[in-house]
Amino acid sequence: MTYKMTPKHPSESLTILTDLVLPSETNPLNNLFGGELLARMDRAASIAAGRHSRRITVTASVNHVAFNRAIPLGSVVNVEAKVSRAFKSSMEIFIDVWVEDRQSGNRTKANEAIYTFVAVDDTGRPVEVPQIIPETELEKQRFDAALRRKQLSLVLAGKMTPHEATELKAIFL
Amino acid sequence: MTYKMTPKHPSESLTILTDLVLPSETNPLNNLFGGELLARMDRAASIAAGRHSRRITVTASVNHVAFNRAIPLGSVVNVEAKVSRAFKSSMEIFIDVWVEDRQSGNRTKANEAIYTFVAVDDTGRPVEVPQIIPETELEKQRFDAALRRKQLSLVLAGKMTPHEATELKAIFL
Amino acid sequence: MTYKMTPKHPSESLTILTDLVLPSETNPLNNLFGGELLARMDRAASIAAGRHSRRITVTASVNHVAFNRAIPLGSVVNVEAKVSRAFKSSMEIFIDVWVEDRQSGNRTKANEAIYTFVAVDDTGRPVEVPQIIPETELEKQRFDAALRRKQLSLVLAGKMTPHEATELKAIFL
Amino acid sequence: MTYKMTPKHPSESLTILTDLVLPSETNPLNNLFGGELLARMDRAASIAAGRHSRRITVTASVNHVAFNRAIPLGSVVNVEAKVSRAFKSSMEIFIDVWVEDRQSGNRTKANEAIYTFVAVDDTGRPVEVPQIIPETELEKQRFDAALRRKQLSLVLAGKMTPHEATELKAIFL
Amino acid sequence: MTYKMTPKHPSESLTILTDLVLPSETNPLNNLFGGELLARMDRAASIAAGRHSRRITVTASVNHVAFNRAIPLGSVVNVEAKVSRAFKSSMEIFIDVWVEDRQSGNRTKANEAIYTFVAVDDTGRPVEVPQIIPETELEKQRFDAALRRKQLSLVLAGKMTPHEATELKAIFL
Amino acid sequence: MTYKMTPKHPSESLTILTDLVLPSETNPLNNLFGGELLARMDRAASIAAGRHSRRITVTASVNHVAFNRAIPLGSVVNVEAKVSRAFKSSMEIFIDVWVEDRQSGNRTKANEAIYTFVAVDDTGRPVEVPQIIPETELEKQRFDAALRRKQLSLVLAGKMTPHEATELKAIFL
Repeated sequence: MTYKMTPKHPSESLTILTDLVLPSETNPLNNLFGGELLARMDRAASIAAGRHSRRITVTASVNHVAFNRAIPLGSVVNVEAKVSRAFKSSMEIFIDVWVEDRQSGNRTKANEAIYTFVAVDDTGRPVEVPQIIPETELEKQRFDAALRRKQLSLVLAGKMTPHEATELKAIFL
Repeated sequence: MTYKMTPKHPSESLTILTDLVLPSETNPLNNLFGGELLARMDRAASIAAGRHSRRITVTASVNHVAFNRAIPLGSVVNVEAKVSRAFKSSMEIFIDVWVEDRQSGNRTKANEAIYTFVAVDDTGRPVEVPQIIPETELEKQRFDAALRRKQLSLVLAGKMTPHEATELKAIFL
Repeated sequence: MTYKMTPKHPSESLTILTDLVLPSETNPLNNLFGGELLARMDRAASIAAGRHSRRITVTASVNHVAFNRAIPLGSVVNVEAKVSRAFKSSMEIFIDVWVEDRQSGNRTKANEAIYTFVAVDDTGRPVEVPQIIPETELEKQRFDAALRRKQLSLVLAGKMTPHEATELKAIFL
Repeated sequence: MTYKMTPKHPSESLTILTDLVLPSETNPLNNLFGGELLARMDRAASIAAGRHSRRITVTASVNHVAFNRAIPLGSVVNVEAKVSRAFKSSMEIFIDVWVEDRQSGNRTKANEAIYTFVAVDDTGRPVEVPQIIPETELEKQRFDAALRRKQLSLVLAGKMTPHEATELKAIFL
Repeated sequence: MTYKMTPKHPSESLTILTDLVLPSETNPLNNLFGGELLARMDRAASIAAGRHSRRITVTASVNHVAFNRAIPLGSVVNVEAKVSRAFKSSMEIFIDVWVEDRQSGNRTKANEAIYTFVAVDDTGRPVEVPQIIPETELEKQRFDAALRRKQLSLVLAGKMTPHEATELKAIFL
Repeated sequence: MTYKMTPKHPSESLTILTDLVLPSETNPLNNLFGGELLARMDRAASIAAGRHSRRITVTASVNHVAFNRAIPLGSVVNVEAKVSRAFKSSMEIFIDVWVEDRQSGNRTKANEAIYTFVAVDDTGRPVEVPQIIPETELEKQRFDAALRRKQLSLVLAGKMTPHEATELKAIFL
């Protein structure tokens, strides 16, 4: 295919999902269930992937997600998702989760997560997506790291030998 | 109380809740239930009211809401809420709802709604909130109209005579 | 069309939805979320509109709703909806919400709300509905007020000039 | 205890829960899940038991429930519950479920169910409830059958010998 | 039909649904709602019926269910369902519910329930299912009792005279 | 602390959550939402971690999860979780997800996921957990790989240098 899609910036897919922690989403300690936050991040990431690709998108994988901070019932939670790098038909979505203090208005980082989505046509077959041109310093760092994460993912899935994972290997040598 | 709170701009309370139309939120025609959109707008407005007042806030009333457009299952819906005017302890929240077309990325206005919230202390008693200084042309229009809406609400509740509702009366004379 | 539909009484569309306040419907203060009550009223009103018109009906608008009373978790809530007036294809539904005290059995009025629904055919086009003949004193008051509300709604939407809103204007003069 | 509670009529506990079949309550054939109807009947019965006893009530058992009719998505379902007989601290609740045809308005019986609730104090200990005086012919039949059902339940639980179940035994002899 | 289906053992349909009691499933006393447990048991029983019959199955009835034990928020609940007896196209499913103590790991029996499912084809017509050969002592007891329960159910529905219910009658004589 | 906890086998924490794909859990293509499966796996893993540690446990992280297969509405999904390795107060939980074909009864592997949970006391402070002794070949492989995953996680979090991650480094050399 000679047609070249116009690359996009991460900011073009920025998706903000600000919502309360509802009672039906809490564990017995009255904090947001890990699993519910995963579901909320999945929806925000899915919208970001759709804004980048203008296609149907499906979750392909969830990268390592650390839960560093309990988020209590009634909190205001900001989930912010944007595409950090695009490959042929897959997109890495970087998600930042912030919790907001009601009295001071301060926002504290609660989680980061990385999801991968694939763009598909109506029959479910992968289709090409626009590439990403990072702009801010943070977007550039995440863009570079995305390649190492992809290699790691291929190595762990047995689809790439550790030897071929050039960028990844470099950090161990 | 001689202490004067620092007024705020509408933009300081801007709350964005972007989410999908989920299957459990649709009516038999596979469109978003009116009642579910009302609930989603209530949560966004509640966060905006909290951002403005830094207090617990409770829904006091919902103004006229028109449902002009069916929103189908799977749509991306943007709910954007900000405080349009503050009175002593109550705040009018203006909510714009946009639906996004997946293929073109175009956003279409689906609804407008106006909710009123009251800031309360831990015992549920109303407390004072900062005033609003509108900035954009649209914010100024909404700020002015909020006073007429408040008068209308007081007249309808029998707490103000039509004669006293100066700004409101003017539009009929 | 010369065919004349038989008018109906408000009592023929009376819909009663008595249910508990469930844990998943409460805010952090353990009271029913405003937004959840709006959703519940929407479902009851939708059934009342269907009973009157025997058609598919969709929410057209929600009139001013005041939340005067917190409704705690575990309460028994009665939502009672009936058609207060019918226009060409739209119906105004008046909703009374009562909360019941478990020990005394006393019912207290918690809310009133007015929703407008439109009857549509399978392609979504508005269709004519039967007219309303009010019977009780309260039904007659609500029937009369419905016309003023419709005019107010048209004026606010810019579809009627304040000058033309005869019944509405009268209350300000 | 010499204090005698005033008996009540079944109609005093009548509870009507009219609601739509929502998309999140349907099985893959787009009919209401049996389990969801059981949950809805449990809530209506719980309210009826509370109206009769003016106490906290907990589900003690569910009698035989037959599902004779599939109830499709979007249907209007009437759940009507009232106390059919009271024993010392337990109450038998009879529940009739009707489905309403949108076009004709005809109601068809979809299910009957019988739940037993026990009234308890704040520490969970059973407390006495008022007796029932049936009024209509149907209420009298259900009142009489309730005793046989209670005996059957005691026999099946091994708390009564078949020999002692006088009323029940009579139907087999 | 001369074709004979191969009978199956109850263990072939064993279905285990272990899950937490979630906040949205509790009553005001913070215990699992009776109605929610009924819904959870219905799903497990439906899977067991499907494993036995390899067909679409629908809930036909729920037998007597006793709620002997409150199950608090956060508990681990084991629902274990297996087919206890098969008739022509219906299957009796026996469900055992256990609650697990977090500290000791001890399991306590919380409930037993019996549901009946019918296997149907794509048009909803009943189809034949394999018979059951019980293996353990408990499975044999439940297999025998199932016949008495079926007779009782037919007698209560007026589809069998008490006189014809041979096995059932025997326990009263 | 000189007290030594008795190690446990992975089988002692085995948790089986078999359930249907419900309509409220599907995306617009009528397949299970990635985010919903993450939530379901989180609950099963949380129970497995509790069975191993007999403590309150909280989600610490989710390892890489690949979604290889769409799971359609109405499917029977088996989520099977067990502890694969225990560290001081954290546990790695390995989760296998199977989808069952209704007609043949065949089970197909749909997903694997790895979650990490931490055992805490009532004040939320980490507490020691029993060690794991793997038994089957697969349990031994997963036990060994768990150490490499922990090192990778520490390296990615900047809490261990790549040089120190002995077992992990070995696969790249």
